[in-house]
Amino acid sequence: MDQHKERIERVRAKMKDAGLGQLIVTDPLGIYYLTGIYVVPFERFWAFLINADSGEKLFANLLFALGETGFDTDTHTDNDDIADVVAPYIRPGVLGVDKNMPARFLLPVMDACKDTRAVLGSDCVDSVRAIKDEEEKRLMRRASEINDACMEKLAAYFRDGVTERECTDYLDKCYDEYGCEGLAFDSIVSFGANAADPHHEPDDTVLREGDCIVVDIGCKKDRYCSDMTRTFFWKTASDHQIAIYNLVREANERAEAMVRSGVRLCDIDAAARDHIAAAGYGEYFTHRLGHFIGMEDHEKGDVSSVNPAPAETGMVFSIEPGVYLPGDLGVRVEDLVIVTDTGCEILNHVSKELRILGRD
Amino acid sequence: MDQHKERIERVRAKMKDAGLGQLIVTDPLGIYYLTGIYVVPFERFWAFLINADSGEKLFANLLFALGETGFDTDTHTDNDDIADVVAPYIRPGVLGVDKNMPARFLLPVMDACKDTRAVLGSDCVDSVRAIKDEEEKRLMRRASEINDACMEKLAAYFRDGVTERECTDYLDKCYDEYGCEGLAFDSIVSFGANAADPHHEPDDTVLREGDCIVVDIGCKKDRYCSDMTRTFFWKTASDHQIAIYNLVREANERAEAMVRSGVRLCDIDAAARDHIAAAGYGEYFTHRLGHFIGMEDHEKGDVSSVNPAPAETGMVFSIEPGVYLPGDLGVRVEDLVIVTDTGCEILNHVSKELRILGRD
Repeated sequence: MDQHKERIERVRAKMKDAGLGQLIVTDPLGIYYLTGIYVVPFERFWAFLINADSGEKLFANLLFALGETGFDTDTHTDNDDIADVVAPYIRPGVLGVDKNMPARFLLPVMDACKDTRAVLGSDCVDSVRAIKDEEEKRLMRRASEINDACMEKLAAYFRDGVTERECTDYLDKCYDEYGCEGLAFDSIVSFGANAADPHHEPDDTVLREGDCIVVDIGCKKDRYCSDMTRTFFWKTASDHQIAIYNLVREANERAEAMVRSGVRLCDIDAAARDHIAAAGYGEYFTHRLGHFIGMEDHEKGDVSSVNPAPAETGMVFSIEPGVYLPGDLGVRVEDLVIVTDTGCEILNHVSKELRILGRD
Repeated sequence: MDQHKERIERVRAKMKDAGLGQLIVTDPLGIYYLTGIYVVPFERFWAFLINADSGEKLFANLLFALGETGFDTDTHTDNDDIADVVAPYIRPGVLGVDKNMPARFLLPVMDACKDTRAVLGSDCVDSVRAIKDEEEKRLMRRASEINDACMEKLAAYFRDGVTERECTDYLDKCYDEYGCEGLAFDSIVSFGANAADPHHEPDDTVLREGDCIVVDIGCKKDRYCSDMTRTFFWKTASDHQIAIYNLVREANERAEAMVRSGVRLCDIDAAARDHIAAAGYGEYFTHRLGHFIGMEDHEKGDVSSVNPAPAETGMVFSIEPGVYLPGDLGVRVEDLVIVTDTGCEILNHVSKELRILGRD
């Protein structure tokens, strides 16, 4: 069975579990995942309807000029009423709809289908997307390989007086040389006390001896994302800085050591959080441990204290503990991991040993 | 009355015309327009509820850290159910909802409000936003002044062998120097036959003698957009190129000469389209004449053959006829105009006379 048919069958199984006879997917990445067809529809209608029994239908504006799609496809134009286009294919009963389907399409369709009740249904796709197949794992490994290489290039680029923004501009070029489509998210390079804000935006701050350097970066390659954080020090590091660094690195390694199929995500979070709390820094670890990732940097699912779901083989998420001391420093250490039956595959290979740069 | 109160009253009048007792706005730019508060909510709920009689309510996640909003504000957290947050304020009857309100908020709210029927209601905001007030006109003039200056900088930057991408990179710097927040849309710089695709993406094509140069650019300054196209030629222009250029320029000028309050938008489109068709190039003018613009590059409303609505004083839209000859050349000439009682104010002042650059 081909890859897309297999993915559709996995969604169909979830629909049956959820009691959904039909599901309409409007998220362009969800449609790409299930069909291999990528469209940026802007304000236009673009949807994939799956019946739980059998059969699917693509709804495409003729302007998308898709040619042969390989799927049963219903085309329309800008002048068509979307309710007229879709309603003939909607059965009475319950219709699962995409969580992001906008009211301008949802309301007219529901008005035209009086015997059909709409419920949120995109979990059926999101929970399948959370388990990466072999092709997706290959693409995620490749995106992280590039991220590793660019992290090392940046580590060699730092110099006295360089600004955060010069560093992120340099990263743009590095990713470009590797043929990336772009960034998975805005690059974070934070020097010294700036790093105490986990989401600091790079500015004209210059690098000075004794600064910590937090680098949180990721690229998109062949539509899949990478995401890694390393924390370096410039020329010197105080005992205090080294102690915080090692604490966070240990928290990262303890959490990664726990990951395997069946372990609750909240317990993985706790492994890192408890270690940091035991050293007295619990209140300075201000965010969840990790997030799911794939074609989007943040996909449905997280590694947090409130998520008791078990890790499953094929899930990919970040492990990124941090400690943020306002006015002083920030430290974060992040890898992506693929869950396996017996543990996990860590996608990042940049050393996590303490690295004091610029001393040669 | 302050600016935002006045805008809300204008929306309230539209609600009464439409028979809507209540309206929920979720578009962040719509909320900014009505309240002056700008939030990027990402996946979180952020809404403004207007009652037709009196009273408004903001719904904000505590993470937005808004402080005093000046509006009756209901705060919630990530752990709250949005239906529980909103439903107590929804009255039985009809609720106008934002065209982009996603199903993940709309469906739970409607499930919780069984005596309320949802209909699309954001036209009440969009039709008010289409008529710019004095402050908005000032901001749109300023964004277009910057666009004029950057177009002239680019015209002076062209040289033999420069690539399209080098030109768009240079433009990024120009806009940056003027303190713009960013681009209104991805800049288009197309050389020679590339310009036959109206949406060509800049690549490594180099500039050569005899090329046409289509430049379609715009910036965002203080949240408002500019958008202008000029077509130049490099070092020489053939009689054929000059004829097409003058045809398109005349179409632009004929359409602009027709604009005034009360004239149907389809008739403005026809003025340009008929002129191009009369010269035998009708089939090569492949898009509508213009689009409305403001805080977004494309706002609701267009200048097209299928829009019989009359132009109204204060509307701002583009006038951008083009002729695209595959494998040969493209020509487009675009200005933004503000409709007035007696005509229009043209926001762009870069000369539209035939300009053959690089001959000094």
